[in-house]
Amino acid sequence: MKDFDIFLGEVWVEDNKISYVGKYKEHDCLFDREIDVQKNLIMPGFINAHTHSGMTFLRSIADDMPLQQWLNEKVFPIETKLSEEDIYYFSKLAILEYLTSGITTNFDMYLNPEAIVKASLDMKYRTVLCGAVNDFCLSVEDVERCFNEYNQENSLISYVLGFSHEYTNSKEKIQQVAALSHKYKATVYTHLSETEYEVNTCKEKTGRSPVEYLCDLGVYDYGGGAFHCVHMSEHDLDLFKEKHLNIVTNPASNLKLASGIAPIQAMLQRNINVCLGTDGAASNNCLDMFREMFLVTGLAKYKNCDASAVDAYEVLKMATVNGAKALNLNCGVLEAGKLADLIILDLYQPNMQPMNNIAKNIVYSGSKSNVKCTMVNGEILYEDGHFYVGFEIEALYDEIQKRVERLK
Amino acid sequence: MKDFDIFLGEVWVEDNKISYVGKYKEHDCLFDREIDVQKNLIMPGFINAHTHSGMTFLRSIADDMPLQQWLNEKVFPIETKLSEEDIYYFSKLAILEYLTSGITTNFDMYLNPEAIVKASLDMKYRTVLCGAVNDFCLSVEDVERCFNEYNQENSLISYVLGFSHEYTNSKEKIQQVAALSHKYKATVYTHLSETEYEVNTCKEKTGRSPVEYLCDLGVYDYGGGAFHCVHMSEHDLDLFKEKHLNIVTNPASNLKLASGIAPIQAMLQRNINVCLGTDGAASNNCLDMFREMFLVTGLAKYKNCDASAVDAYEVLKMATVNGAKALNLNCGVLEAGKLADLIILDLYQPNMQPMNNIAKNIVYSGSKSNVKCTMVNGEILYEDGHFYVGFEIEALYDEIQKRVERLK
Repeated sequence: MKDFDIFLGEVWVEDNKISYVGKYKEHDCLFDREIDVQKNLIMPGFINAHTHSGMTFLRSIADDMPLQQWLNEKVFPIETKLSEEDIYYFSKLAILEYLTSGITTNFDMYLNPEAIVKASLDMKYRTVLCGAVNDFCLSVEDVERCFNEYNQENSLISYVLGFSHEYTNSKEKIQQVAALSHKYKATVYTHLSETEYEVNTCKEKTGRSPVEYLCDLGVYDYGGGAFHCVHMSEHDLDLFKEKHLNIVTNPASNLKLASGIAPIQAMLQRNINVCLGTDGAASNNCLDMFREMFLVTGLAKYKNCDASAVDAYEVLKMATVNGAKALNLNCGVLEAGKLADLIILDLYQPNMQPMNNIAKNIVYSGSKSNVKCTMVNGEILYEDGHFYVGFEIEALYDEIQKRVERLK
Repeated sequence: MKDFDIFLGEVWVEDNKISYVGKYKEHDCLFDREIDVQKNLIMPGFINAHTHSGMTFLRSIADDMPLQQWLNEKVFPIETKLSEEDIYYFSKLAILEYLTSGITTNFDMYLNPEAIVKASLDMKYRTVLCGAVNDFCLSVEDVERCFNEYNQENSLISYVLGFSHEYTNSKEKIQQVAALSHKYKATVYTHLSETEYEVNTCKEKTGRSPVEYLCDLGVYDYGGGAFHCVHMSEHDLDLFKEKHLNIVTNPASNLKLASGIAPIQAMLQRNINVCLGTDGAASNNCLDMFREMFLVTGLAKYKNCDASAVDAYEVLKMATVNGAKALNLNCGVLEAGKLADLIILDLYQPNMQPMNNIAKNIVYSGSKSNVKCTMVNGEILYEDGHFYVGFEIEALYDEIQKRVERLK
């Protein structure tokens, strides 16, 4: 564990799974391709446990304003003009960016599940969708239909129950989601306690914190978790621990929208499973797990006035195996039988030298530029700066720019 | 200014200077090389206004401890074993990393000026050295000798008076530096008000904040500035404004050592010239201006509970022209007659699309992986992942690894 068991050896991939991990050994099967990674690192891909892929079109459009104003004045009005096809193209751009950052799965919440499913399948990418029930456009019936449809269609796609936010759903809607969760004994995810304003408003309305309120409504009786969780009381955190809920932290987005710094150290002290996500390109603005990894530990050190808070090993777990656990995915570690969602990191760039500690090098110094190769489900989709996703990248950029001009 | 005057056109370089910037025009001179940058961006290189290049050997060795303990238990003991040749090799590694991040000048403070000067000249890199007078190993006489020697030797090298910290120098030493500054009418730089502990200790000892104390001693009568400046009172900031001093902020290092968040918004409101630096690899741990650019605005937004604080244009100035101003360098803007310290950024990667706002894309989404080319003093030293610095990169890595093993 101390150095994440880094060893010299081989990883074999057959179909979409890892078939062997260990020292060099003779083999009689014929591989399509053998890659000498030299002394670079093969590791599990990162799991981006909270994002809105379709929002790439908003990158750098609506910066420098507070969250509620940003949502109400910029994001919501322009989103009403979006077509399913728009979301399809914008999601493809996000997936390209995930590949450059070694992200092999996204946990995605957005308006139109069909669009991101089509984008992911066309690019052979792995997506877990999250239901986004809200009072304006997505019903509980929509989410139930998707839950049944997308949990059998393809091993690259799965679907988790969820709703947008406490504050964009009536009590009845939230109770309906809870009932759905009870019916299928299924987990539920939502945005939660992202801003102080959200927490205060909920308290005024219900007399309870958002976490307490959702627990009261039975939302979390079958587990799941929440995104952001910046403003959590001790009691909120205790509830999360008691119910074995997962937290997806989004440090860059929380900073940039001035929402705050999540109490990561207090979560880890309770053994809560903490995962890492980029949030969407509208707020972050880039979809880069290396930035999130540095931030989650840097901000925890600052918040706790303790430079030893949240060490690099914890951070690597957040970015890989913790995400897999939360999303019930058979990946996140190098082990025979696991899904072949793998990345190769280039350790021979200046930011990774000298090799005093490879895990710390990755978390504190790593960058997109170290990602040599990203494999999803046994297929290499990105290698040495080239994408293998079935279309011309510049044509996609042109298509997106045209659509953005129309929407603006 | 609104979009930093981005235009379609040409930049000509002759010898080490920019000779033309503007629309396409006929020319009768013959260039050695013409680069079609397509629709990518040429801009001034970044100026890393505070770093310790020689400290790359400490990367990932001494993480997760508070600043004073980190300095006293990890950094200082191992530094006593360093040879000039060690520092030379470790500095070369830092320069490689600067090139990958589009940094064209470093403002460097470390033990042995000869080593970093040799590294920079061997690699044709631009370095401004900062004197590092302290009670243990560097005298005021050493600094005066360097000041005279390195300000005439080569246009790639210049030298600024300075001392390590208030707390590693006796009052007499600091007064001697002040006298030197008076003798040459020269600016002075130092680490200042980095931690609360440092400020409190100085107040107990002198009855004054570190800023007030140095001003009283005459250190800043000819200008200059300081690194870090995290714990600054209103009066400290007023003194900086009054004396036209420069501040170099180091957000990643200040986070990771749990030192705090500098009051950037309050500095800008006073029109103080704020520059950006990575600090050394021992504390940061990577030498990446893109990370610093995102952090300086993200942290200001958080600190001021205001998502509109410190916008992207301010940040780009901090990373370029403000640094040039502080260091009295003839660069930092695209203009005929300026030094040809230029970078080309690849705008056709997913993190830079769509092009809603190129300046914001760079600051909020940019990454080392967007740096296509880094030119220093009219020569391309890095292009498309390849270094043109006169030696084999892997041989340097091997040399450094051997030296690190000896020092550990």
